[in-house]
Amino acid sequence: MHKRKFPLSRVYGLLESGPVVLVTTARKGRANVMPMSWHTMMEFEPPRVGCIVSDRNHSFATLKATRECVINIPTVELAEKVVGCGNTSGRRVDKFARFGLTAMPASRVAAPLVGECYASLECRVVDTRFVEKYGFFVLEVLAAWVDPSRKAPRTLHHRGRGRFMVAGRTLKLPSKKA
Amino acid sequence: MHKRKFPLSRVYGLLESGPVVLVTTARKGRANVMPMSWHTMMEFEPPRVGCIVSDRNHSFATLKATRECVINIPTVELAEKVVGCGNTSGRRVDKFARFGLTAMPASRVAAPLVGECYASLECRVVDTRFVEKYGFFVLEVLAAWVDPSRKAPRTLHHRGRGRFMVAGRTLKLPSKKA
Repeated sequence: MHKRKFPLSRVYGLLESGPVVLVTTARKGRANVMPMSWHTMMEFEPPRVGCIVSDRNHSFATLKATRECVINIPTVELAEKVVGCGNTSGRRVDKFARFGLTAMPASRVAAPLVGECYASLECRVVDTRFVEKYGFFVLEVLAAWVDPSRKAPRTLHHRGRGRFMVAGRTLKLPSKKA
Repeated sequence: MHKRKFPLSRVYGLLESGPVVLVTTARKGRANVMPMSWHTMMEFEPPRVGCIVSDRNHSFATLKATRECVINIPTVELAEKVVGCGNTSGRRVDKFARFGLTAMPASRVAAPLVGECYASLECRVVDTRFVEKYGFFVLEVLAAWVDPSRKAPRTLHHRGRGRFMVAGRTLKLPSKKA
């Protein structure tokens, strides 16, 4: 796993296609990892991301308390581990050990990067005013890492009830905007 | 184009994979349509959707004033029209006429459905408290329509700078959750 620093101005291109992501959090030396599909870009640079984390998830309290996480983007090879992470709770299980995921130190936050994911975004929570009502956290991306060898990442996109669309071919069209 | 009413409890499966959508708005008998990729599901039922609309878009003022829109989901056949809608402004152009899109009456809102899209979600704005700071609108889906003949819709997913990922194959994995 070789990750290179990635320009913050291009982070939106990693997230706006709607991939399932693995969110890591850490508190008191213990890390957890949770799949998430309910996220959106909110600003280009510095990149801002909004996401929903339900208070039924073990990660919710850690995210709220530490105000830090890493958004990791897996590809299809990791599909079974991703679903496994969603089917178990960090309350009872060390998911890194259970699913053979590698926790790598991040540069700006205590939560780890997931080594097997092709991209990782270190994030800080910058607005919690919509957390109580909606479980909606506003994050700012502090640092981004991408494996430069992955040109056409076959990301996973959840269509509900365990069905995942695997990223297909790329179409290039002359868009004037970002 | 045959659209059938679609259960609100399953709407999340249409949006959480991150498709580019066409958002329609209407005011004083004039409709507009705008592509959007920055959206997220926020709640299952009634379905709640959060989205970012920049105040640089012509649709922004209409959405804010009328508090209504329709989220339409196009597939790859419409890719050039989608990009065309993003490259022109409703200030100067009737995009339905220009791009040959069919405005069909909705059941609950004044904004039209886009006939060529395989799914359409009639929405009402339910929270504007994050509009000033982030351009973030919270929508509730009032009615949903899907073309039942489209089993594996080849949705478009923007990866930035005019590159679109076209939905590939479907993987089914035993997820315990939604």
